Amino acid sequence: MKDVHAMPPARGSLRLRRVGVAALKKPLVVRRPEQLTTLTATFSVAVDLPAERKGSDLSRNAQLLAEIVDRTATRPASGLESACSEIAAELLVRHAYARESTVHATAPYFLSRGITEERRSLEDYLLIAEARATRGADGSITIARSIGVEAVGMTACPCAMEGCREKLTAEFPLLADPSLAGLPIITHNQRNRTRLTFELPPGSEVEADEMISVVEASQSSPTFAILKRGDEAQVVLDAHRHPRFVEDVIREVMGGVVERFPRLPDDTIVTAETTSEESIHKYDVAAAHTATLGGLRGSPDRP
Amino acid sequence: MKDVHAMPPARGSLRLRRVGVAALKKPLVVRRPEQLTTLTATFSVAVDLPAERKGSDLSRNAQLLAEIVDRTATRPASGLESACSEIAAELLVRHAYARESTVHATAPYFLSRGITEERRSLEDYLLIAEARATRGADGSITIARSIGVEAVGMTACPCAMEGCREKLTAEFPLLADPSLAGLPIITHNQRNRTRLTFELPPGSEVEADEMISVVEASQSSPTFAILKRGDEAQVVLDAHRHPRFVEDVIREVMGGVVERFPRLPDDTIVTAETTSEESIHKYDVAAAHTATLGGLRGSPDRP
Amino acid sequence: MKDVHAMPPARGSLRLRRVGVAALKKPLVVRRPEQLTTLTATFSVAVDLPAERKGSDLSRNAQLLAEIVDRTATRPASGLESACSEIAAELLVRHAYARESTVHATAPYFLSRGITEERRSLEDYLLIAEARATRGADGSITIARSIGVEAVGMTACPCAMEGCREKLTAEFPLLADPSLAGLPIITHNQRNRTRLTFELPPGSEVEADEMISVVEASQSSPTFAILKRGDEAQVVLDAHRHPRFVEDVIREVMGGVVERFPRLPDDTIVTAETTSEESIHKYDVAAAHTATLGGLRGSPDRP
Amino acid sequence: MKDVHAMPPARGSLRLRRVGVAALKKPLVVRRPEQLTTLTATFSVAVDLPAERKGSDLSRNAQLLAEIVDRTATRPASGLESACSEIAAELLVRHAYARESTVHATAPYFLSRGITEERRSLEDYLLIAEARATRGADGSITIARSIGVEAVGMTACPCAMEGCREKLTAEFPLLADPSLAGLPIITHNQRNRTRLTFELPPGSEVEADEMISVVEASQSSPTFAILKRGDEAQVVLDAHRHPRFVEDVIREVMGGVVERFPRLPDDTIVTAETTSEESIHKYDVAAAHTATLGGLRGSPDRP
Repeated sequence: MKDVHAMPPARGSLRLRRVGVAALKKPLVVRRPEQLTTLTATFSVAVDLPAERKGSDLSRNAQLLAEIVDRTATRPASGLESACSEIAAELLVRHAYARESTVHATAPYFLSRGITEERRSLEDYLLIAEARATRGADGSITIARSIGVEAVGMTACPCAMEGCREKLTAEFPLLADPSLAGLPIITHNQRNRTRLTFELPPGSEVEADEMISVVEASQSSPTFAILKRGDEAQVVLDAHRHPRFVEDVIREVMGGVVERFPRLPDDTIVTAETTSEESIHKYDVAAAHTATLGGLRGSPDRP
Repeated sequence: MKDVHAMPPARGSLRLRRVGVAALKKPLVVRRPEQLTTLTATFSVAVDLPAERKGSDLSRNAQLLAEIVDRTATRPASGLESACSEIAAELLVRHAYARESTVHATAPYFLSRGITEERRSLEDYLLIAEARATRGADGSITIARSIGVEAVGMTACPCAMEGCREKLTAEFPLLADPSLAGLPIITHNQRNRTRLTFELPPGSEVEADEMISVVEASQSSPTFAILKRGDEAQVVLDAHRHPRFVEDVIREVMGGVVERFPRLPDDTIVTAETTSEESIHKYDVAAAHTATLGGLRGSPDRP
Repeated sequence: MKDVHAMPPARGSLRLRRVGVAALKKPLVVRRPEQLTTLTATFSVAVDLPAERKGSDLSRNAQLLAEIVDRTATRPASGLESACSEIAAELLVRHAYARESTVHATAPYFLSRGITEERRSLEDYLLIAEARATRGADGSITIARSIGVEAVGMTACPCAMEGCREKLTAEFPLLADPSLAGLPIITHNQRNRTRLTFELPPGSEVEADEMISVVEASQSSPTFAILKRGDEAQVVLDAHRHPRFVEDVIREVMGGVVERFPRLPDDTIVTAETTSEESIHKYDVAAAHTATLGGLRGSPDRP
Repeated sequence: MKDVHAMPPARGSLRLRRVGVAALKKPLVVRRPEQLTTLTATFSVAVDLPAERKGSDLSRNAQLLAEIVDRTATRPASGLESACSEIAAELLVRHAYARESTVHATAPYFLSRGITEERRSLEDYLLIAEARATRGADGSITIARSIGVEAVGMTACPCAMEGCREKLTAEFPLLADPSLAGLPIITHNQRNRTRLTFELPPGSEVEADEMISVVEASQSSPTFAILKRGDEAQVVLDAHRHPRFVEDVIREVMGGVVERFPRLPDDTIVTAETTSEESIHKYDVAAAHTATLGGLRGSPDRP
């Protein structure tokens, strides 16, 4: 059968950066500290394409995903990012003409959380992983990996809180009484979605659950599925005692990363992105930052 | 050319309820009280199909949409729902074999709103319209229409507010002072999305802007694009002075409909649907109700 | 603590049809014929609310979902629809004031498929389940269940095929040669998404995998993740030998249901919905039908 | 009133790259060659934030969007990208502490197209624009702009076509007859979505309609809303006479850009991204490339 992909391209000759398959869904079984977990993962995989080839052998990508991902039903992967790395490396083996491969995956993820032990249930998060394999001049393969997590929590606005404090104090002078100094004041609060991503130097390992903890500690409050009446009040109180702009969330995440990941190398690239689905507006408020971990450690202002 | 659509079906003979085109985007120019507005509308149109025909002549649907919608660039429609009605009737003219047609359309829609006159700007809403034409035994065509609006606003939770009041009063006994009786207490608040739909008896007309006003009055507070610091506090205060469950929102909408649409007939069917994107949970809270306007008027409990 | 939900509503007194939580994600472990499978399911659950109550005790819904769904990690459910039924029944136990409950769930689902044995891999589908529990006058609880599946496949258009045949025969007269009578002719083909749903009478059971098989047999061809060059041609040929409108897909599904589910009772309600993401248009083409299985069996034209 | 935004941040001091509002919808009136058009645009705008400030004055962003976008109702903009540039510059005026601003906008867009003059109707596309303003050391503001378009068309697979040719020729030997040499052979075809983006050096102007033409000429065929039976066959024939992989689409776009934009400077950065929603798979196939226009002109292989 004629190999159309290997023919020269119809027009021009241009090396293409990225050709592949996208939005391919697969169950991936991963081994967690306490148990096996099945992730419903969505993969995109691609390789570059030399100028002299018309097409990339895409059936190899689906084949390879089936081999590596489907077999985790019997031989679990150690994580979403390790599966991505394995796929990225194998893509370069099967596409002998490629110099670079990229694998991107996302998956809903669940952790047992609760405002108290009796209220524990599985809360949903998002895992994001990427691996990029590069073939060196000597044929060796280098893999750059990134791992990300996304957690939904709550932010309470510090600015509207001060505005309300002034308005309310004018209306209720007793509010100025020193005994009410610590009284939490009304403000707008809302669902906040924050993503933390590490681009890891070779050899570094990181635990997604720990990243999720950093994110949740950076919002005004984490959120929970099961909240009885007293619990609801507790979450609301906590959030109003930690009022945070999206700007604060980003800085808290960056500070938390420095504290919680002392063993990650300085050249780890850290990205934080956060969106508050403002309750007082129809639009969202968002902030983002990227820095090296070294930069964050040395002088937070340098990046 | 062979008319494949008019051939008998390959398998069985079954009248089909609905065959058509979906997700077709068009700009629709409508005449509003003060000006012309261009809606970016998304249409789905369908007719039924007799048992003896293999297929529906779908190119007629696209042709007809082009004729009726594209020409509003020079001859504006009076509204999204009137355009749907015209399309529904014309579908039965062009599909002589059909007994029923359905046209559904949605479009982002903008109204000038502001917490004060100087803060006015265009806020976004959603319009939804549907028309269903039926061919009677005598060949006459009857059209049932529905019109809906969706508005994003804010809800503040009345239950967590009471929980917080108790916790805070225990911590700050001065809160029990009578002079602080009306002090708004913290609670969780969030983005709320509420839809109101009328299925209108023939001959009834209704103004979408008025429906949007009913929805916005039913949430804890409407939301605005432009809020300076003092305004933010005002919206937050308003919302906390009108704490509402999704259940309250539905009942407020239903009550508002009775008050604001005295001329709509009793057999108007009213549907309200509301979703609060809870700030303290990762999931949404939702409520819905459907009733005849007569039922709502007579005894609110009857439907 | 004050029970705000049990208070009378602020405005009017109106029994509400549906109040609940929506878009709540959970992993659900189900026992399949050959193995355990973890579904990443999204649930919406609701009950009605009497006129005299301000609010529904929503924390019970999250609690109950946690209990029933989370525990499948150790005690697998028999299926998505059985989990929904159990939740629906339990909702009426915990909301003593409710007369009706509704549980809706969707989940990506995977089956091993291949154009040949060596090409097998996990292909993705969608499961949809709904259960509605009603409390009778005597306190007994009746449960109505529905189960649905969605499969992506391919449709090839029979009409454009005839148009192309005419044009090509004019240009290539040899095409009229009797020896080319069965030659498949070019046409537009595209991704098709078809959903089949059964509303089951009490006591009826149905296997989702079998429903998926009916859907896939009704499209011009099923689709596969792994297709080597020869396989691609085979799928294309199959699709062009079974050119089908969306109308044909619906009728094939309905016919397939009659053949493949002889033991389901006549009062089963069957709904088929299909969308072809037309390759020659920017919009979709869609068809749908609903009928009782008895109607489909007796005289296909009757519904 | 206390200016909370101007206070020092609670934790660390870190200049943040991007703080702003997102997903804000507005109607934008633009002057097109023949008429005024109203775009329903979705904006995200952001500025950086110095280390010593707690928050960004976000109400200024909404205010500014209202001023610049809402006023196009009476004073139309010249285009989506010019509106973005104006907003980006003004952001730096109003956020005196910011060094950089970014404005991103997307909007559905309509052009009159038809396979023949009588079949013309409005077809939908997507416009994407971005402007980034930078404040220099001397206070001067530089603006980098990018403009993108997305068009849905059709691709027909050249590889499956050859596979089918071999299979069919084995079954129908007459196909090898020289008189049938140019006969289009069946293959899978599907909806293709292609985006072309230019990052423009200062002073360069480009016409979005021309960019859309380049994209549509690069797919196997453009698609149309209105196709009578003969027209459908024509589109199918055209597509099968220009079978293209996603790789081919990218190379055609890049070649088309070189031909159609001779006046754009060499340092224009060109990005093409394409996705075919494969009819024979449940997943998509995608390709992308980025190059300078100079690179594309000089030696297509160089980038």
